[in-house]
Amino acid sequence: MTLDPHAVGAAGEPQRITWTAKDCSLYALGVGAGTGELAFTTDNTRSAPQRMLPTMPVVLGTGAGVLKKAGEIDWVRLMHAAQGVEILAPLPVEGEASVVARITEMWDKEKAALIVVECTGTAPDGIDLFLTRMSFFIRGSGGFGGERGPADTTEEPIGKPDETVSYQTREDQALLYRLNGDRNPLHSDPAYATKAGFERPILHGLCTFGFAGRAVLHAAAGGDPDRLNSLDVRFAKPVYPGDTLHVDLWNVPGGAAFRVRTGETGPNGEGVVFDRGRATIAG
Amino acid sequence: MTLDPHAVGAAGEPQRITWTAKDCSLYALGVGAGTGELAFTTDNTRSAPQRMLPTMPVVLGTGAGVLKKAGEIDWVRLMHAAQGVEILAPLPVEGEASVVARITEMWDKEKAALIVVECTGTAPDGIDLFLTRMSFFIRGSGGFGGERGPADTTEEPIGKPDETVSYQTREDQALLYRLNGDRNPLHSDPAYATKAGFERPILHGLCTFGFAGRAVLHAAAGGDPDRLNSLDVRFAKPVYPGDTLHVDLWNVPGGAAFRVRTGETGPNGEGVVFDRGRATIAG
Repeated sequence: MTLDPHAVGAAGEPQRITWTAKDCSLYALGVGAGTGELAFTTDNTRSAPQRMLPTMPVVLGTGAGVLKKAGEIDWVRLMHAAQGVEILAPLPVEGEASVVARITEMWDKEKAALIVVECTGTAPDGIDLFLTRMSFFIRGSGGFGGERGPADTTEEPIGKPDETVSYQTREDQALLYRLNGDRNPLHSDPAYATKAGFERPILHGLCTFGFAGRAVLHAAAGGDPDRLNSLDVRFAKPVYPGDTLHVDLWNVPGGAAFRVRTGETGPNGEGVVFDRGRATIAG
Repeated sequence: MTLDPHAVGAAGEPQRITWTAKDCSLYALGVGAGTGELAFTTDNTRSAPQRMLPTMPVVLGTGAGVLKKAGEIDWVRLMHAAQGVEILAPLPVEGEASVVARITEMWDKEKAALIVVECTGTAPDGIDLFLTRMSFFIRGSGGFGGERGPADTTEEPIGKPDETVSYQTREDQALLYRLNGDRNPLHSDPAYATKAGFERPILHGLCTFGFAGRAVLHAAAGGDPDRLNSLDVRFAKPVYPGDTLHVDLWNVPGGAAFRVRTGETGPNGEGVVFDRGRATIAG
């Protein structure tokens, strides 16, 4: 069965979600924040009222299920290829929202399909809080009669980065991160990971996304979550728990360009795990 | 106002508690278990069905509130002096229980009061699951007309330990552990900790208790939580997050004796943070 190119615009049922200060702390610890970031990791530090890390909406309501509206999905050959988040209003540390997932793009790359799902989180008072954007690449699902779509024209920054922030991930990073919701054993069970073709369990791409967001927040937005308006990356390679992440940042008009690598970058981009990173930053 | 020596036997209202596999994972990670202990840290590792760490009952229902039945408590001068746990039945990873706290001992040490509170957790089918035992030392609250009580005759083990297990705690250990419930800013807020007389936030005594329990479980009970029947320690000195814990174990009839230290032990017990440790172990 092929995909239906007319599924663009299809939306899932609204999903009611709630979150607490404890959830915000757990998320922050899961993406490596610690004693140096008490405003994100603790709820009652007098000098640092708690804030939600701006990348946290990616774990608040997940919308991949809406893909079923595009036709029969070959889940085994589906890859989460890119991720974005937009902060539309200050995010409370305790709150609730209604999340709606929507298929916003479908492109026929002949050998593969590229589908974009956006989730919008709306507060009970009707104010949109956040938008997350997931791009899925499905090998073998092209040729369904859709359009090829535009080429990605995001330019890779050139030259030495303006700043590099390095974070050491931990051996058990994925064990902690998965308590935010994604319990895929690919990130925890060695036997399962080996069967899937990896030497051992890999880190969640969205965990690395959180580390990258912290680097951007602190290096380019003065640590102020209200200044970080959006963050987008493309997933290039898997990260293993225990890897050191180097986030290279370049100042660009309106924000920052960035990439994440786990070592020195080779001539063909070896070592790069996230590329095409873009952040829009206010003020 | 003085304490009432006749409060022995007073019980609090039953408290209904529930816990999930996620709670068990969070607790295990909070006391330092990681990728080497997937049976305690993950819920879906095929080769290692999840188990609750046997020290976890100390965060399931806390009963210090029952102390109010003993009279007016000087909370500022109260110290959590010792802790024990008894496992009365195999602990499910998802469950519920009714917890009743009871004052079981009150001793008048002239300059201080020593009060023991026991909490019993009972499953809905009436089976007792666990018992926790907290000893509180309240400076300045002696002289209430109670008995002095027996001297502690627990003998310190002599000679070289049969085994020493070392664990490195992390800078952010208390930030993670506190998500199990005890959000006292003494363990997270530097300004608060300084005001309380410490150079920086200290680790929860019950977090160190969990590390000690893991050492006993793996070194003396073959990693099998069904073999660890009880664990008791006396808190001697505070631990700072980032300290390395050395758990010295001695085989004794019916189980193990142990102590925990953060460095070399001096002639007067310098470096010892837990002493009088006793574990009863089956089979």
